[in-house]
Amino acid sequence: MTRLNETAKGVYVIAPTPFLPDGAIDTASIDTMVEAYIEAGADGLTIMGMMGEAQKLAPEEGLQVMRRVLERVRGRIPVVVGVSAPGLATITGLSAAAMEAGAAGVMVAPPGTLNTDGKILDYYRMVGEELGEETPFVLQDFPLVTGVAIASSVIDRIVQDVPTCVMLKHEDWPGLSKISALRRTSEAGGRRISILCGNGGLFLPEEIERGADGAMTGFAFPEMMIGVCRLMASGESAAARDLFDAYLPLIRYESQPGLGLAIRKHILARRGIIAHPTLRRPGPKLSPADVAEIDTLLERQTARLGHQSE
Amino acid sequence: MTRLNETAKGVYVIAPTPFLPDGAIDTASIDTMVEAYIEAGADGLTIMGMMGEAQKLAPEEGLQVMRRVLERVRGRIPVVVGVSAPGLATITGLSAAAMEAGAAGVMVAPPGTLNTDGKILDYYRMVGEELGEETPFVLQDFPLVTGVAIASSVIDRIVQDVPTCVMLKHEDWPGLSKISALRRTSEAGGRRISILCGNGGLFLPEEIERGADGAMTGFAFPEMMIGVCRLMASGESAAARDLFDAYLPLIRYESQPGLGLAIRKHILARRGIIAHPTLRRPGPKLSPADVAEIDTLLERQTARLGHQSE
Amino acid sequence: MTRLNETAKGVYVIAPTPFLPDGAIDTASIDTMVEAYIEAGADGLTIMGMMGEAQKLAPEEGLQVMRRVLERVRGRIPVVVGVSAPGLATITGLSAAAMEAGAAGVMVAPPGTLNTDGKILDYYRMVGEELGEETPFVLQDFPLVTGVAIASSVIDRIVQDVPTCVMLKHEDWPGLSKISALRRTSEAGGRRISILCGNGGLFLPEEIERGADGAMTGFAFPEMMIGVCRLMASGESAAARDLFDAYLPLIRYESQPGLGLAIRKHILARRGIIAHPTLRRPGPKLSPADVAEIDTLLERQTARLGHQSE
Amino acid sequence: MTRLNETAKGVYVIAPTPFLPDGAIDTASIDTMVEAYIEAGADGLTIMGMMGEAQKLAPEEGLQVMRRVLERVRGRIPVVVGVSAPGLATITGLSAAAMEAGAAGVMVAPPGTLNTDGKILDYYRMVGEELGEETPFVLQDFPLVTGVAIASSVIDRIVQDVPTCVMLKHEDWPGLSKISALRRTSEAGGRRISILCGNGGLFLPEEIERGADGAMTGFAFPEMMIGVCRLMASGESAAARDLFDAYLPLIRYESQPGLGLAIRKHILARRGIIAHPTLRRPGPKLSPADVAEIDTLLERQTARLGHQSE
Repeated sequence: MTRLNETAKGVYVIAPTPFLPDGAIDTASIDTMVEAYIEAGADGLTIMGMMGEAQKLAPEEGLQVMRRVLERVRGRIPVVVGVSAPGLATITGLSAAAMEAGAAGVMVAPPGTLNTDGKILDYYRMVGEELGEETPFVLQDFPLVTGVAIASSVIDRIVQDVPTCVMLKHEDWPGLSKISALRRTSEAGGRRISILCGNGGLFLPEEIERGADGAMTGFAFPEMMIGVCRLMASGESAAARDLFDAYLPLIRYESQPGLGLAIRKHILARRGIIAHPTLRRPGPKLSPADVAEIDTLLERQTARLGHQSE
Repeated sequence: MTRLNETAKGVYVIAPTPFLPDGAIDTASIDTMVEAYIEAGADGLTIMGMMGEAQKLAPEEGLQVMRRVLERVRGRIPVVVGVSAPGLATITGLSAAAMEAGAAGVMVAPPGTLNTDGKILDYYRMVGEELGEETPFVLQDFPLVTGVAIASSVIDRIVQDVPTCVMLKHEDWPGLSKISALRRTSEAGGRRISILCGNGGLFLPEEIERGADGAMTGFAFPEMMIGVCRLMASGESAAARDLFDAYLPLIRYESQPGLGLAIRKHILARRGIIAHPTLRRPGPKLSPADVAEIDTLLERQTARLGHQSE
Repeated sequence: MTRLNETAKGVYVIAPTPFLPDGAIDTASIDTMVEAYIEAGADGLTIMGMMGEAQKLAPEEGLQVMRRVLERVRGRIPVVVGVSAPGLATITGLSAAAMEAGAAGVMVAPPGTLNTDGKILDYYRMVGEELGEETPFVLQDFPLVTGVAIASSVIDRIVQDVPTCVMLKHEDWPGLSKISALRRTSEAGGRRISILCGNGGLFLPEEIERGADGAMTGFAFPEMMIGVCRLMASGESAAARDLFDAYLPLIRYESQPGLGLAIRKHILARRGIIAHPTLRRPGPKLSPADVAEIDTLLERQTARLGHQSE
Repeated sequence: MTRLNETAKGVYVIAPTPFLPDGAIDTASIDTMVEAYIEAGADGLTIMGMMGEAQKLAPEEGLQVMRRVLERVRGRIPVVVGVSAPGLATITGLSAAAMEAGAAGVMVAPPGTLNTDGKILDYYRMVGEELGEETPFVLQDFPLVTGVAIASSVIDRIVQDVPTCVMLKHEDWPGLSKISALRRTSEAGGRRISILCGNGGLFLPEEIERGADGAMTGFAFPEMMIGVCRLMASGESAAARDLFDAYLPLIRYESQPGLGLAIRKHILARRGIIAHPTLRRPGPKLSPADVAEIDTLLERQTARLGHQSE
């Protein structure tokens, strides 16, 4: 399998973990979901992240989901596997299993105890050392959830010191100036790593203009992200923004913390990409009012896109 | 002056505090800003909140700003004054000064140490008791900033126990289901208080459909919020959403935590509503890239609105 | 194996996980440690908690440590197994493995996302339901680390609603009034559960006088805790305090957050209870100055205890 | 008035703010308290800090307390005034008032929003600049309460860049290694500032051995801190530890977060140093069980000290 490297770009869709109504893993939906994402033009997949409900899977279930996805993908696109855990033993164990099963790389978020620049840097140096030269990794920078603020100067140091850190999953908020700062460093001669952005795509046009290489997030219509990235890449900025704006009311709605994944799975199920919208307990459920709002947003979105496509 | 009560509705614009380039209070801009907001159709004003940089004002400056706004408003619309502070002595002192100067009510956010339902309820009982019968207050529910999660059942209890709590500034996120829950309580016979929503207007159409009475937030184009509220009130939901969607790319952009106020002041200055975009130190400054992004968003917004208005 | 129930009392020693200098699990030291604790008079053991570096063990390592301890104990004293995890699937999987291997019960700390009374209550109801009638559990109340504040009224509700919650590991701080409040509830007719206290024993005499049934914590000299509990139980309060005070300078020193476990393992190794003081990475290391301070404290402690015993 | 400088040492007692039973400021007790502290041998006083309930005073009350203390002290010992606030305008206003009234310097804790090394450094550079050359200040490092972790390398940078930062109030926990690290820097040629330690004196002997210059904290028996510092200074380390140990059960009891100030005021009132143990609302009250525990601790302490002094 090709390993993830600094040139990665485009859209790495964050894939949810599909469940049956009773909470068991829905392997059939893993297959349909993988095919749907590849067909939509995804450049990669990311699994077992926060939006993959990884923390709700028992250890052996996590391995099962990972292997099923990798088998189904069969190397057609790179797959990044989330391996964040409080302890290095779990991280290295999961990473070894992921790479052996064909993953392109792994993703590591900082534990919440890292509260100074030095501790963050030491942590990622240790991660790089423990994972070894053959396991490229993605630094996940998501302070709203991790509680860890990583200054751009600290990312610069990690990039300089840890050669296997090949990508930043950028999810600081506000974070546009951070992208600009990191790109200034690489333009001044520093190693340039890939930057893919999260936040449900809510700032995608601006992120790409600042120097991001694409998105790594999980909006229910990946074709929006793929389209925006392609249009921006071909210089059609206004068309990219038109497309983005057409989806924006829903992007915004899906960006609600805590509830977002339930909304996403509801839409994915409605679109036939997965069979059931089930989240594992403990997790939120959509109310009838939530569903009615989604219906309204989808109707209006379809109308806008229909009109545009004429 | 009329006191704030449970029937308040519409748009209470969160007003920033204008500064001169050297950081001094810009009293002339207070006047132009007040007139601009009233002319735009604001139903009320809220001053000295988090977006008013109240915490950066010396105590006597806070009083000065408050009095200037109230003098300029001259009772044309109600003014709510933020009085949140770690200690009750400061809260009651500020509240007394505000009511004496003609405020319609005050707004109180919970201190960050309230970490159980009981502590929150006790705190607001104490606030109600200390402020006294003649001072209506707004409960500010903004967990992202305060760190205090207030369950809807706790708000129900406060509403039941503290008659001078007449309004909720709703800024939980996600918070739509909280509005629904609170309205179920009042429909079942509980006292119904006013709910005005924050979050920069990012969920305004949904919030009103859930039962909110309007907005209390500070988007740089208050006419959007006023228009959406009026259209929703007259049953023109689709038109309200059309208007909302036209502004949404900017609403989203202005909702960036930390940076949002700098964006808002930049646009208000550009529109001539205040003279300078200055924030007091410590505070963020817009970069050229930020300003270019705002320019793009404003151009596209103008184009959309122009087309709509034809 | 006897199951844990509401009558549990005395000292449940929190056992660390011994490692070899290279970080591998030191199974020989598990054996010596178990024997040392039983010989010292421990009423029970608690393993795989925060002080057991459970989060640094890979899943299969956790099972290995658990089984080794349980095999060695051979039912002589009850063993509680920490099973806290972000997801229920992991909790129930670990609990099943623990009970099958002979544990007396499991211990569950709240995930950090539980920020209202209702969410905490719902969580423990769900835990009780998922673990089933045959798995008694300990509610771990440790806000300094979990970030979750549990009001005593919420514990009362859990005790009332979830019959398999048979013990509170009390580690709120300050928490003496919480013990008093919980005992008032049981004296008024509520179900009385066992309360064992943590905090490294720093408030042990007061905790027992308030109604606690003993300690569940891991001070390097468990004989202090066992002695204090026995003396208090036989009404010799002054002698209990004399004993406590003799160890207090070291109790205090070992209570340093973050560093405490390194101090404890250093002393346990020095006493021959485990072979090596190793902590797994990432973890603190003692400096020569730390070690010199421990030496001074131990010398003075020995002198005090020697003098007392004459 | 002499200004605070890097050579400050000994015990700066953190003074509470005395209140009458109805919550009004008790100016007579300010006088008796000042005299008692000076008579006990305090090297300095610190007022208006977290333990001074400064955040519960209205702005004009804060000025009143500060002026009364300074008038009563009449320059006999230096007084440090806490001026921490979210905004610089309040900090500079309070500092100017304090210095004009005769304070030796001010103390500034970091606002909770400083979550990277760079932001902390920038903040204190800005504080130094705004306060000006004539106002020496104390950096208050108290992460348990402020939520801001300051690495020792960041303190080194502040010391290097901001000449008016002349003292560290050290209250990190565990923090002994931080003192060692800071002293290594000054021994290697960096500017040496004064380090006075907090934490209620719980680690005072170790702190002084690591290189601290004394204590800035508020234990109810300042003679303990003064005695320990003097004995350590004259090389009588064992005698210092004997004295410390005699008070340790109470030091530990008073160190309970949240409750500690109520305990301290209770004892100060009992000793006649202030007239009433009142805390302002919202604040904890001692229960009869708390008071009985304090009685027991004081009786035992008196017995130990009596025996020692024979």
